[in-house]
Amino acid sequence: MKFQRRGPSGHEIPAVLVDGVAYDLSSVTGDIDGDFLAGDGPARAQSALDVGSLPALADQEARLGAPLAQPTKIVCIGLNYRDHADETGAPYPPEPVVFMKDPSTLGGASDTVPIPRGSEKTDWEVELGIVIGRTARYLDSVDEAREHIAGYVLSHDVSERRFQLELGGTWDKGKSCEGFNPLGPWVATADEFDDPQNLGLRLWVNGELRQNGSTANQIFGVAHVVWYLSQFMVLRPGDIINTGTPAGVAMGMEGQPYLRVGDVVELEIDGLGRARQEFVSHE
Amino acid sequence: MKFQRRGPSGHEIPAVLVDGVAYDLSSVTGDIDGDFLAGDGPARAQSALDVGSLPALADQEARLGAPLAQPTKIVCIGLNYRDHADETGAPYPPEPVVFMKDPSTLGGASDTVPIPRGSEKTDWEVELGIVIGRTARYLDSVDEAREHIAGYVLSHDVSERRFQLELGGTWDKGKSCEGFNPLGPWVATADEFDDPQNLGLRLWVNGELRQNGSTANQIFGVAHVVWYLSQFMVLRPGDIINTGTPAGVAMGMEGQPYLRVGDVVELEIDGLGRARQEFVSHE
Repeated sequence: MKFQRRGPSGHEIPAVLVDGVAYDLSSVTGDIDGDFLAGDGPARAQSALDVGSLPALADQEARLGAPLAQPTKIVCIGLNYRDHADETGAPYPPEPVVFMKDPSTLGGASDTVPIPRGSEKTDWEVELGIVIGRTARYLDSVDEAREHIAGYVLSHDVSERRFQLELGGTWDKGKSCEGFNPLGPWVATADEFDDPQNLGLRLWVNGELRQNGSTANQIFGVAHVVWYLSQFMVLRPGDIINTGTPAGVAMGMEGQPYLRVGDVVELEIDGLGRARQEFVSHE
Repeated sequence: MKFQRRGPSGHEIPAVLVDGVAYDLSSVTGDIDGDFLAGDGPARAQSALDVGSLPALADQEARLGAPLAQPTKIVCIGLNYRDHADETGAPYPPEPVVFMKDPSTLGGASDTVPIPRGSEKTDWEVELGIVIGRTARYLDSVDEAREHIAGYVLSHDVSERRFQLELGGTWDKGKSCEGFNPLGPWVATADEFDDPQNLGLRLWVNGELRQNGSTANQIFGVAHVVWYLSQFMVLRPGDIINTGTPAGVAMGMEGQPYLRVGDVVELEIDGLGRARQEFVSHE
């Protein structure tokens, strides 16, 4: 199943997407959030669909909100693609590299993204996002971890490289600027994917293909990442894990063509739809 | 004013503390959170106190919850005390060192803290916590930043040094274990402090004084930190900023006496009360 949140920012309506039509889920849940995912929400949504009790949204063109309500946390995995490590000459990390992102950076798939004040190096990163469905704490195995994944989502881990790497401290400073985590267009439940380690990811800037990777190149696969993180923190229903980006970011390109006001980024992942974000002035 | 949340975990009642007596604030607010702080809650609480409309809590010994509801984020400043930098031989950072902590790590001032599975180096850090009162975005000056601070709180930034420093990646891995941010006993509004840069901080382990510092030794003061962070992220009402720890952590001591099951940590900051946490097995 595919879930969305549609409508003006702060007033999104939960919806389920079937054959391109968005149906209003308000009678089933107040929101697409951790409670919905942990409380058997997808099954209840399917039952409501089966009996035909969900009205189609009156406005099928309504704004795409982030398809998930603001979670407790967004955890990110760095340097997690072999092609990206190879192109930068970095050794493969022996354990997942972990950092965090302010969860209030979430935005909709078509929202504009402000280039931060003082930014010189705003960069793109298409990423497969994991959505946690059940509380995960000290999981015993990678197999057990799989059962804690509710679904997946197209996530844009926008990054400011100067803030991230040149101002001292950890990476978090360059990852949490306003609007820096566009999400969606939808959350797809895990059962829609035969193999999450064989998904193509692509990203274009102003129509030019910049990233063209596959989750087959992940150093640590999605279930490993969930198992690993559960040893260090409690993952809560609705939490998001951005699982790293393949080769092709501006930082790694000749001339480092960082994003400027007016640039348009489009991105997609197999089965997770396509998003388009224009970069704008911060105010 | 001093605000608390009292009662069983997940069922805390908002309270205001006057001369050691906790009064029930339920008639004024549902919780001590960002909406309360940004919505002139302290003034409404004062009015209710003035007219005598608040009943004393029936159980004045009720559990101390974290005195603030779970915020959008907890931001932390590292290496922010001169005495701590001096003792470790580290140069003073030219800009604040920033990292993040899972906001679901908050606990009450007297709650037990689990030593994580696999931990060898669980360490203590008494810290002055800033509580944000108004949305802060690209603040123009340190003076303007002061107006965005609602109050202060005693915060324990518990840290696992092996997870933080020896497993690759950024520090976040060793900062977000379950229960790793005991908070309180209360949030005190900023007007209770003539000078937040002259507060004593102390911490004992099993009765032995381990940290005995002053916020006068902060490299970056509280208002500077708020101004600085607002250039990189949007600070929301109710967000917490842990402003760093003075000298005296286990990592810097001879023999590195990290915390073990059964150890008791007590900590206090002038004007912000005293807390006591026993460290227990993770399960």
